[in-house]
Amino acid sequence: MPSLPPVIAEIRLAVRTALADLPEGSTVIVGLSGGADSLALAAAVAFEAPRCGLRAATLTVDHGLQDDSAAVAEAAAGAARDLGLDALVVRVAVDGAGGPEAAARDARYRVLRDAALDVSAAAVLLGHTLDDQAETVLLGLARGSGAASLQGMAPVREDDDGLRWIRPLLAVRRETTQAFVAASGLTAWNDPHNADARYARVRVRERVLPVLETELGPGIAEALARTAEQLREDAEAFDEMIHETIEDIVEHAEAGISVSVAALAANPAALRNRIIRLVVDSEFGVALTRAQTLEVARLVTDWRGQGPIDLPGCAAARRGGRIVITASGR
Amino acid sequence: MPSLPPVIAEIRLAVRTALADLPEGSTVIVGLSGGADSLALAAAVAFEAPRCGLRAATLTVDHGLQDDSAAVAEAAAGAARDLGLDALVVRVAVDGAGGPEAAARDARYRVLRDAALDVSAAAVLLGHTLDDQAETVLLGLARGSGAASLQGMAPVREDDDGLRWIRPLLAVRRETTQAFVAASGLTAWNDPHNADARYARVRVRERVLPVLETELGPGIAEALARTAEQLREDAEAFDEMIHETIEDIVEHAEAGISVSVAALAANPAALRNRIIRLVVDSEFGVALTRAQTLEVARLVTDWRGQGPIDLPGCAAARRGGRIVITASGR
Repeated sequence: MPSLPPVIAEIRLAVRTALADLPEGSTVIVGLSGGADSLALAAAVAFEAPRCGLRAATLTVDHGLQDDSAAVAEAAAGAARDLGLDALVVRVAVDGAGGPEAAARDARYRVLRDAALDVSAAAVLLGHTLDDQAETVLLGLARGSGAASLQGMAPVREDDDGLRWIRPLLAVRRETTQAFVAASGLTAWNDPHNADARYARVRVRERVLPVLETELGPGIAEALARTAEQLREDAEAFDEMIHETIEDIVEHAEAGISVSVAALAANPAALRNRIIRLVVDSEFGVALTRAQTLEVARLVTDWRGQGPIDLPGCAAARRGGRIVITASGR
Repeated sequence: MPSLPPVIAEIRLAVRTALADLPEGSTVIVGLSGGADSLALAAAVAFEAPRCGLRAATLTVDHGLQDDSAAVAEAAAGAARDLGLDALVVRVAVDGAGGPEAAARDARYRVLRDAALDVSAAAVLLGHTLDDQAETVLLGLARGSGAASLQGMAPVREDDDGLRWIRPLLAVRRETTQAFVAASGLTAWNDPHNADARYARVRVRERVLPVLETELGPGIAEALARTAEQLREDAEAFDEMIHETIEDIVEHAEAGISVSVAALAANPAALRNRIIRLVVDSEFGVALTRAQTLEVARLVTDWRGQGPIDLPGCAAARRGGRIVITASGR
């Protein structure tokens, strides 16, 4: 018997580890585009799920954005059936708000969620790799909004419906999924979008990461993924701390919301600025920039009798011992 | 009277703001290489220091690494004297441990500190710009050790001697310092090291940042600097939290050091992993990698009776309710 190619062993292990915590007898849905990443994931799930006592199916979303998208989706579903998996194709209309890339992603996630809830699935499995994570970090870096934009994608996230979104391949290189597909005799679809330089993600993949590798040495993708992991931990710690205190320091009023100056002053800047951003975002749906956040913070840290600070859709002012944030025009 | 060029106004304001907190009558030392950044800083300090009631001098370090280094240093000192500043030149021997770049920097900081302490200066002023900060973040990104390596240089840092190290130009673009020098009729020295692609920093400046600007849009240097600022805040918050608890959870013993399992378990991962790294670093002078840190953490979070974990120079084991770290071989 020939021995198992290492790339197949690596991906099966990653999948087995990711599935280990799921309740026996439950169902997982693999998001399958037909590209190498999700095809390798589906193949490894087809092998591992029965051994973990899980049922598995694939769902392929046909966005209808390309002429042959129906054929591509059917081919992916066919490959999944050949692997012994149930395979669904769902056609969606993409309205293009926020660009075709964002709209397609939103539609895909919605379809996956609905399908998973329909069959009471425990988890949706997504094929993002370490390379996708590195690209996400670089795209976040360009936004410059600190840990929040650098933490990349979560390896496991539970949504409000109790559905788990799991990325078993987040520590696996993309070339490993390609080698898995080749070693398994499968045929992956090459999404032409993946070579379309109008997408920032494609430019990061094709032009930015190779330059970083050349100039700063190999291992940059792993370094970016490691950074994301640590910054995600940091963000979770801050979230937890804020969650523990926010109820005690915030008061809702008819005209808006207020936060205790003393509490903001007692917290380190990292927490103070996050609390300010969270309060404004949750009350007014506005994401403050760093500069705006710091201007509000100066009502606490550098109080010299400043007047109200105009923000998008609202205004912040210090009144007595509180920072009061009210809708604009009140 | 001609109006003040905006680049001169911008840099003078940055310097004035940075000097505002220093006690009247105290002395500041400007680290002056003669390049545009430090020359613009020295010129702005020459103008602002007397108006803030401060005395100012420059110190130029001649590393002797280039044939004309003595002449370059004397020219920089001459320019400072023309600006009305006291100007010192100190020649140092650089031994090259850790590469000429690191050795020269270490020597430079040592000379600046000694000179500042000699004259009881309140602060050393350094000419690092926003571009230097962006480069530092990218170099840290390549190391992949999370917030610690991405937080760049501190705008203000107080050392153990109470000496402040201030970087007034950390929010100023390098091109602004160059424009300042031109607008002031000064002549800056072009360090040939700044074009030597053997240095990773030079490759970042000349090859990486331009590609990021082209592919991800302008504003990337500002985004990197903003990221550094936010991650520095985060790191300071964690440092503060750890400082508050570390004494209560760590015990020193003859054979090493131990940390309470319950305390480590009660903290979020971001704090737990930092505490592990800090304890090992402070006791054994060893900087654990991410993988090593997580392996030690699993003695807390995923305890299955693991044996001792070998680390560089030490080993970690769970004994009773404590993680005990002892020197290797004990």
